[in-house]
Amino acid sequence: MYIENLKVVDCTIRDGGLMNNWNFDDDFVKTVYKSCVEAGVDYMEIGYKSSEKAYSRKENGPWKFCDEADIRRIVGDNKTKTKISVMIDIGRIELDAIKPKKESAIDMIRVACYVHQIDKAIQHAEHCLDKGYEVCINLMSVSKVIEPDLDEALRDIAKSRVQTFYLVDSFGSLYSDHIESLMAKYTTALPGKQIGIHAHNNMQMAFSNTITSIKCGATMVDATFLGLGRGAGNCPMECLIAFLKNPKYRLLPILEGIQKKVHPLEKEIQWGYHIPYMISGSMNEHPKDSLEWMDSDNRNDFMSFLRKMHDKEVLE
Amino acid sequence: MYIENLKVVDCTIRDGGLMNNWNFDDDFVKTVYKSCVEAGVDYMEIGYKSSEKAYSRKENGPWKFCDEADIRRIVGDNKTKTKISVMIDIGRIELDAIKPKKESAIDMIRVACYVHQIDKAIQHAEHCLDKGYEVCINLMSVSKVIEPDLDEALRDIAKSRVQTFYLVDSFGSLYSDHIESLMAKYTTALPGKQIGIHAHNNMQMAFSNTITSIKCGATMVDATFLGLGRGAGNCPMECLIAFLKNPKYRLLPILEGIQKKVHPLEKEIQWGYHIPYMISGSMNEHPKDSLEWMDSDNRNDFMSFLRKMHDKEVLE
Repeated sequence: MYIENLKVVDCTIRDGGLMNNWNFDDDFVKTVYKSCVEAGVDYMEIGYKSSEKAYSRKENGPWKFCDEADIRRIVGDNKTKTKISVMIDIGRIELDAIKPKKESAIDMIRVACYVHQIDKAIQHAEHCLDKGYEVCINLMSVSKVIEPDLDEALRDIAKSRVQTFYLVDSFGSLYSDHIESLMAKYTTALPGKQIGIHAHNNMQMAFSNTITSIKCGATMVDATFLGLGRGAGNCPMECLIAFLKNPKYRLLPILEGIQKKVHPLEKEIQWGYHIPYMISGSMNEHPKDSLEWMDSDNRNDFMSFLRKMHDKEVLE
Repeated sequence: MYIENLKVVDCTIRDGGLMNNWNFDDDFVKTVYKSCVEAGVDYMEIGYKSSEKAYSRKENGPWKFCDEADIRRIVGDNKTKTKISVMIDIGRIELDAIKPKKESAIDMIRVACYVHQIDKAIQHAEHCLDKGYEVCINLMSVSKVIEPDLDEALRDIAKSRVQTFYLVDSFGSLYSDHIESLMAKYTTALPGKQIGIHAHNNMQMAFSNTITSIKCGATMVDATFLGLGRGAGNCPMECLIAFLKNPKYRLLPILEGIQKKVHPLEKEIQWGYHIPYMISGSMNEHPKDSLEWMDSDNRNDFMSFLRKMHDKEVLE
């Protein structure tokens, strides 16, 4: 499927960091960066940019904060075609701490928000835009947003100067019908803007939902090496690159990063499809209960987890 | 998605047996059977029916042969709504060895064939039909069949008395566009017949392709507990049942079978998504090379496997 203006965004470190508090060593991050550059990946999201007033350095590694010096240690002056992205959360960053683009190795700042924060997200994004960055807004947990609220958010985005808006399946609960319906709504409400997709793999739908989004007009697509990410993980980069068959991208460097760093990490941390994540996804619930369950000694007691989640349907 | 005439076919023992030569103990098979019955699964495919002239009892467990006595030991007289299915391969079974339905616990016989065997497959299926069984034909490796051959096969099926025909993604190489195209072809060529889907998970598309097939009119769908099956495995039954949300089916008994028997089996045999299977799937190749690679000490050398598969594209 050849789509000239498609952009692939690697989120391995940023989303994967949710599983190890962003404690990747430099060699790991450098390997992912080198793989992205050689594979032709358009953006590498290297972490969250956060304030130390919001998060402790003791509990979180450098990629929760993305200091300029830390990024430079990995990418130098980044004289490559792969742009560097960071994500910010509303209320976890002081906007004044963001330098002008010309003093930063960062190219794109993505603002993650819930629907009630959309005005703040636009303010944050336009602030970064004015400092010279590419920006985009990722509206999380859309599977819980009722239509009037979503329509209002889309009207606000349409009026803003923000050029890119993301469909985010935070709970891994969306099937292809949902994706088609939401993509139709997004593209209709936001003519001339770029739509992105960020999928989770609770129900083994992340890659398929990414393809569906592309068919529906998404031109910015998130993926991670071997699907590394919170809980069930993300759309696997290797599947996406193999699917695209676009000469701009190469699979072998992705496999190199997986082979050297990401696959060996499976011995230390567990992510990917597991029954508790499937249950929370299929029930359209936040993965926090399934993540807790997977961290407990009961992780393989799938029946009890289903009963716990269905506690109000006692005759199930 | 409520579809009144949908039938779910469990293939855990039959397809999973490809990974352990059908050496499941009785307790394992009984647990899967009990789960299927309690979950409302319409058919349980308990194995292959094969001749001992084709396969050795030394190398293969009972579910490669499906003797009547073995089946009865599991299902008794099977006074349940779950029907029992077996698969036969062309040239690996003597038709005279198949008893009349009234003497057997088997309800359905599925004939697996390649496109050049379609006439033999129809002969086999109609032979079984005349003995009183439900029958269907599973055309394997359709991702390698060119259109004139496929059209001829479909014309032959259309003229036959065989009521059910399967879309089988043997190599796990089909994306949703392929499924939509093939389903359109099958439903157009076979008016009044039932279409089934059997998917493999090489590219994490098995469940999604199953959903796509259902949306395109498939009414018989194969799945296995925790996706157990050859290589990357199959459409996971738990995802399918959670998706269907049909009061006819229950998820909890499926989780019971997984928790008690199928999940613990992961300590002994490996199946499911792995990079070598993804590579062979994305290249539309038979999984035999990736299966061999996964059985070797090189299993985690993904780069070398890609290079081996791409050996003709030396500059890749």
